[in-house]
Amino acid sequence: MLRTLAFDADDTLWHNETHYAETQEAFRALLRPFHDAAWIDARLHDTEMRNLSRYGYGIKGFTLSMIETALELTEDRLDGAGIGQVVALGKAMLDKPVEPLPGVAEALQALAGAFDLMLITKGDLFDQETKLAKSGLGGCFSKVEIVSEKDEATYAAILQRHGIRPAAFAMVGNSVKSDILPVLALGARAVHIPYHLTWAHEVVASPEESPFPVLESIRELPALLASW
Amino acid sequence: MLRTLAFDADDTLWHNETHYAETQEAFRALLRPFHDAAWIDARLHDTEMRNLSRYGYGIKGFTLSMIETALELTEDRLDGAGIGQVVALGKAMLDKPVEPLPGVAEALQALAGAFDLMLITKGDLFDQETKLAKSGLGGCFSKVEIVSEKDEATYAAILQRHGIRPAAFAMVGNSVKSDILPVLALGARAVHIPYHLTWAHEVVASPEESPFPVLESIRELPALLASW
Repeated sequence: MLRTLAFDADDTLWHNETHYAETQEAFRALLRPFHDAAWIDARLHDTEMRNLSRYGYGIKGFTLSMIETALELTEDRLDGAGIGQVVALGKAMLDKPVEPLPGVAEALQALAGAFDLMLITKGDLFDQETKLAKSGLGGCFSKVEIVSEKDEATYAAILQRHGIRPAAFAMVGNSVKSDILPVLALGARAVHIPYHLTWAHEVVASPEESPFPVLESIRELPALLASW
Repeated sequence: MLRTLAFDADDTLWHNETHYAETQEAFRALLRPFHDAAWIDARLHDTEMRNLSRYGYGIKGFTLSMIETALELTEDRLDGAGIGQVVALGKAMLDKPVEPLPGVAEALQALAGAFDLMLITKGDLFDQETKLAKSGLGGCFSKVEIVSEKDEATYAAILQRHGIRPAAFAMVGNSVKSDILPVLALGARAVHIPYHLTWAHEVVASPEESPFPVLESIRELPALLASW
C-alpha cells in the first residue's frame, strides 16, 4: 500500500532548467566577441563539472563557474563591467519568481488527502528553501528533504529516518538519473514526468521500453495512482 | 534529564572564522592600491549584508560578495587577473582541510556514551556536509541538521521533528545569537564556548552576568554536564 508520495522540485514542480538555459544564452552573448556559442557552452560545462565537487549544485556555484569560464575564454581580457554583468545574471536567476508548473497546485491538493506528501530536492539549501517559500506550495508537504546528492544511499537514509518501507513509497520527478533509477533500485516505485529540457549532467540512456510509468503532465498522476 | 546534546559546528568543532579573516586579509591586500583597509572591510560587510537574503550564508556567497565589492571599489578597474585571484581565494577556502579544535574528538567520544549527540549547523548544505566528512567527526553524531537560519522557530521544528522535549535538550556553541539565546527561549539549556573571533553579523550585547554557562574549552564540558 502506497502511503508516502515524494516529489522532486526543480523542473517537476516549477521551471528551473529554462532559467539556466536563458542565463546561458545571455552569457554566450556577452562572450560572442571572443568565441563561438558551441565552444563557450562546452567550456562552461567543463568548468561546472570540474567545480562540482567543490561547489555542489546551485546558482551560486553556477555563477562562479560562469565568471571563471569568462576569464579563461577571454584570457582575463573581459573587463570589470563584463564581470559585473555575469554577477548580475546570477542575481537575476536568484530573484526570479517561482511559479508552479501547470496543474501542480491542483494535483498536490488532490493527492494530499490520500497520501503523505514529501518533497525531496537536491541543490543549494538556501536556494531550495527560498524557492519553496516563493512557490506557495510549502503547505502541501509534511516533510521536506533538501539533499546534496540524490543517489540510492540518500534515498535509503531518508526512508530509514522516517520509518518508511520501500513498498509504501513512490517518487515523482523529471530526472531518470536522480528521481527514478535510485528509487527503483531500493524496491520502491517511481513515476517519470519529463521536462522539455534536461541538464547534460543528468542525462542517462533511456531503456527502449520504459520499466516505469512516464506521464506527460502531473495532471495524469492522480489517475495513475488510483489504478495501482 | 538531559538526553540529547547538540553541537554547533563552525568555530565550535573546527576553525571557520579564522579562514574568513585570513581570506579577507588577502582581499584587502589585493585592493590596497585603491583603498585603505578599514574602508574595504566596511564595504565588504555592507555587500555581504545586502546579499544575505539572496545568497544565504557560506563561502560561495562570500566569494560573490568579494567580487562585487572589488568591482564597486575599483569602479570596474580591477582587471581579469585580479578577479581571478578573488575566485581563487574562495576556492582555497573551500579546499582547506578541516581539523577539529583541540579536545573536540576526545570530548565527543567521552560524551557519546551518555548522550545522543546531534550536530546543528547553519550555512551552505554542500559546504557543511563536506566539512563534516573532512573532519572525521561524522560518526559521533546520530543526527545532523543543516539549516539556513538558527532562530527559535528552527530549533522548535528540530525538537518537534525528533520528538525531543526542551528539558531533555542542550545546545553547545560559540554564538550567543545563534546557539544560546534561541535555545534558552524554548526552555532548553545551552552552553557557550566562545571562539576568539566572532563575525560582526553574529555579535550581540552580552549580559553582565551570564545566565548560561561559559566554558573556555570543550574539554570542560563533560565535567559541567556531570554537575547538572
